[in-house]
Amino acid sequence: MPINKLKQITSKLPLNKSLVSYDWQTFNSDLFAGIITAILLIPQGMAYALLAGLPVQVGIYTSLLPALMYVLFGTSRVLSVGPVSIAAIMVASALSSPEIKALGSSTQNAMILALEGGLILTIMSAFRMGSLVHFISQPVLSGFTSGAALIILFSQFPNMMGIKIGSCTSITECLNNAQSSLNIFDMGIGLLALATLLLMGAPLSKLLVNLGTQQTIRTGITKSAPLLSVIIGTILVTAYSLDTTHSVEIVGHIPQGLPAIGVGFLSTSYDHFLALLPSAFFISLIAYVESVAIAKVMASIRSEKIDTNQELTALGASNLAASISGGMPVAGGFSRTMVNYSAGAQTQIAMLIAVAVISLVLVSISQSLQSIPKAALASIIIVAVYPLVKLGSVVNVWKQDRSDGISQLITLLGVLILGIEEGIILGVIVTIFCYLRRTGKPHIAVVGRIHDTEHYRNIRRHKVETWDNLLLIRIDENITFANINFISEFIEAESRETDAKNIVLIFSSVSYIDTTAILYLKELINSLKHKGVVLHLAEVKGPVIDKLEKIDFLKDLLPGQVFFQTTDAVKCFAPNINEA
Amino acid sequence: MPINKLKQITSKLPLNKSLVSYDWQTFNSDLFAGIITAILLIPQGMAYALLAGLPVQVGIYTSLLPALMYVLFGTSRVLSVGPVSIAAIMVASALSSPEIKALGSSTQNAMILALEGGLILTIMSAFRMGSLVHFISQPVLSGFTSGAALIILFSQFPNMMGIKIGSCTSITECLNNAQSSLNIFDMGIGLLALATLLLMGAPLSKLLVNLGTQQTIRTGITKSAPLLSVIIGTILVTAYSLDTTHSVEIVGHIPQGLPAIGVGFLSTSYDHFLALLPSAFFISLIAYVESVAIAKVMASIRSEKIDTNQELTALGASNLAASISGGMPVAGGFSRTMVNYSAGAQTQIAMLIAVAVISLVLVSISQSLQSIPKAALASIIIVAVYPLVKLGSVVNVWKQDRSDGISQLITLLGVLILGIEEGIILGVIVTIFCYLRRTGKPHIAVVGRIHDTEHYRNIRRHKVETWDNLLLIRIDENITFANINFISEFIEAESRETDAKNIVLIFSSVSYIDTTAILYLKELINSLKHKGVVLHLAEVKGPVIDKLEKIDFLKDLLPGQVFFQTTDAVKCFAPNINEA
Repeated sequence: MPINKLKQITSKLPLNKSLVSYDWQTFNSDLFAGIITAILLIPQGMAYALLAGLPVQVGIYTSLLPALMYVLFGTSRVLSVGPVSIAAIMVASALSSPEIKALGSSTQNAMILALEGGLILTIMSAFRMGSLVHFISQPVLSGFTSGAALIILFSQFPNMMGIKIGSCTSITECLNNAQSSLNIFDMGIGLLALATLLLMGAPLSKLLVNLGTQQTIRTGITKSAPLLSVIIGTILVTAYSLDTTHSVEIVGHIPQGLPAIGVGFLSTSYDHFLALLPSAFFISLIAYVESVAIAKVMASIRSEKIDTNQELTALGASNLAASISGGMPVAGGFSRTMVNYSAGAQTQIAMLIAVAVISLVLVSISQSLQSIPKAALASIIIVAVYPLVKLGSVVNVWKQDRSDGISQLITLLGVLILGIEEGIILGVIVTIFCYLRRTGKPHIAVVGRIHDTEHYRNIRRHKVETWDNLLLIRIDENITFANINFISEFIEAESRETDAKNIVLIFSSVSYIDTTAILYLKELINSLKHKGVVLHLAEVKGPVIDKLEKIDFLKDLLPGQVFFQTTDAVKCFAPNINEA
Repeated sequence: MPINKLKQITSKLPLNKSLVSYDWQTFNSDLFAGIITAILLIPQGMAYALLAGLPVQVGIYTSLLPALMYVLFGTSRVLSVGPVSIAAIMVASALSSPEIKALGSSTQNAMILALEGGLILTIMSAFRMGSLVHFISQPVLSGFTSGAALIILFSQFPNMMGIKIGSCTSITECLNNAQSSLNIFDMGIGLLALATLLLMGAPLSKLLVNLGTQQTIRTGITKSAPLLSVIIGTILVTAYSLDTTHSVEIVGHIPQGLPAIGVGFLSTSYDHFLALLPSAFFISLIAYVESVAIAKVMASIRSEKIDTNQELTALGASNLAASISGGMPVAGGFSRTMVNYSAGAQTQIAMLIAVAVISLVLVSISQSLQSIPKAALASIIIVAVYPLVKLGSVVNVWKQDRSDGISQLITLLGVLILGIEEGIILGVIVTIFCYLRRTGKPHIAVVGRIHDTEHYRNIRRHKVETWDNLLLIRIDENITFANINFISEFIEAESRETDAKNIVLIFSSVSYIDTTAILYLKELINSLKHKGVVLHLAEVKGPVIDKLEKIDFLKDLLPGQVFFQTTDAVKCFAPNINEA
């Protein structure tokens, strides 16, 4: 029966789990959180659409259907999916190239990016390829985020200050341009919005804490700052007709009503889809990585569990929804999620309510949005994005781990100098290169026995027993093409320094050995045999011994043996073991 | 004093070591081996020059100065450096592109390739970057060699058979072309040479063994096969004027005397050098990998030691020498080296003698080389290259190791379908991708104690003790961005399946932990804390504990502890330990 089937399907959706124990108290929390989130989402959505170079309504549309899709399919109960700053600047970068501009309107291009991103995420989900994104390491992600945030700040600062720098080749020329284009009214509104946002942030929050205000109420008040700043700006514009009398830039006409659902944007050439594909790939990858990172932080706070593969499906569906409802690529946003959570959202119902509120605004009072000054929106972006610039992190990571520091710095510089996508690619390549270089020089230790025990430790770090006729070498990594040369040379060098006729390789850390490594090991065995030295193995793990048996390696090893324990080898070759 | 200085420098050259204990007996061996090698090198050098699309004398020139350079700088006592088949086909592939052809004559292009390759190898040597080539894994090298050898066979088969297939689009058209162009005299000479080579190979060798002939004499006789096959061909051509009467293709004019030394080929554009650089990079890389592989095999047989970085210098010098003496890129060749060795070469003096013999031929009887039929040279190439095609190896490697098998097969197909350089790049990318995928799923085991011991083993493979309140998890690999997600999910999944309130991660195999991994571990610690589970570490290695202390990780771990031994953790959390 189809209804049973439907029940079966819906029972598997993550949302269903939240609703099993839903009650009025939870609903009250969700209702409040939903309204607060909507208050943030409207101005933020508009701001990010401007950042992406799109009409402001695209940002609002993107806060509707995609958010619903995430509510249906996502595994985080509080993640808020919609337009986000990093995805927006990536969209801006993709849409700014002349070849892309020639192919279609920016709105159509944004919809195609969302569609392709959605498909890529869905395919990755179907093939369970979510682990691919782990190649974007934390330092690369962090360097990338700082770089992208800096680009956003550079792009929005002139908007907030009411200046147009245009194209200039020298600093003097840029400054001249800035001065001649400066609109003191834009600047006033921008700085007023900035002041509102900053004062209603930490200082107001501190004051409210001192007054003993409840946390959710506090969030409600402080997070209304963006709304308040655009209201102030809008009132000023409307009261003095600043847009017509003093050329203050405003958002302009916004179509009334909900976005049309449709696939009309698909009627274009094959080349058009192809041209946007690389950008869609990077946008969706970064959107996924950031969403999962935020979802995980929230899940850790709320003791929930994120299913990373289900997140791929959910984000894929959200992006597909964005594409057919006139939206732009989406991701889980940090600030919107934090608002939702700290306003007391208990379940995804809060996001449903936020969507309902935004829809209500669109069908009723969308006209009143058209006088919002762009400078105020620029201030909202700057305040939202500023915390993402973490240059101190570059220094910290550099101190902790040189190669991670290099990856982070190169990604950051790559983003700033070469471009956003180029920066990620460069960062990933550098990370993989450093990784291969490091695994190419694995940790190997000559070990000896700690007196009166069966423990073997590095002779350089511990006071241990060693024996004349026996050299114990512990290899601390899987043996592959990347490191076998280093390992062979290490063993040969150690062998030359002693008279030991038996070398035991301790394989306790070796879980895998590849074809190249086996070939080199055979060469090593032969080369040592010529010098009268026999190679043995000890503590070989199950999967490794299975493989070595399968390819008859143990015959090549003869007269070398495989010892279960290192101690067995010591008993065999070091006669004084019995005295211990 | 300059002479003392010179002595100081020469005393460091590898050659000097061989000469310390040189005597007449060794010289006799070297003399014989040198003559035999020269007999092989002349026809083989000519053949490989033809394979590369160059005038035959280039192949002979390349056997002189480059070989001397290797004698001076190389660390292998028997490696014979000169024109080789794989480098020759790579040169042919590089020179065949119309853009390259437009820039200069093929001889000039070959000299530039040798120059650039020599510089690349020298730079790699100076920066001790020899380890870079280890990213060309054995399966990739093997797949590449088989693929390149197949291309050589396809290219030389028509030459041996006296047919010209030209450009054809269907099999019928190709066959028609073949039939109409067939020259029965070329074919006869080619097949006669083939028969000579095959009969003088294994069958003759077997016969001589049965007759009790000495090994060096046997080598002398069997390895003269190429010389004999060209002599037969040349006699037939000369006796019946086959070149003029029946259009049999012969080598043609060869300038008398030694090659001119000079740098005239350098007078060209910057773009010309740039255009050849990528090919030079791949040729020199493969030349180096193959030379070192052969040198290592020989060193293992002769109980010698190869210094891989010195080999870079030596091959760099050889290629530079090739470029200024009218030569093509060089490498250590397997067949020429085996001839040298099995003819009884004791030191590099054998190669000096071979060079002297070849020079003598060039200054005295080079005219007599001009009637050598090309079909006979094609047969020499085919017989030399055929053993390099090892398709069985693809099957074997596939059975042993799936990802190595995939790399090898993709490299082989890449070389055949996309091209020689593209094949290597593809192979390296696939290898690195498989490597990252594999290290992304490291071996992790829940372990328990083997009764009455302090040994801990995988609970799935051994009969071990476990405890209700303690979960022991051994991580068998370094923890990095590539695998931390898998590791966290494994630990969380195992934690959900037990009531244990203490989880001990055994770090005995962990030598390195990166920034991403530390961040995820902190998240994991917090997430477990919410469930009342405490994470501990045990058997943490020196470098890892140093790093964790440096970044205050141990504070984040609290109340989790770091245990020196796993047994210490068991004593702490499993009270029944004392009964054991």
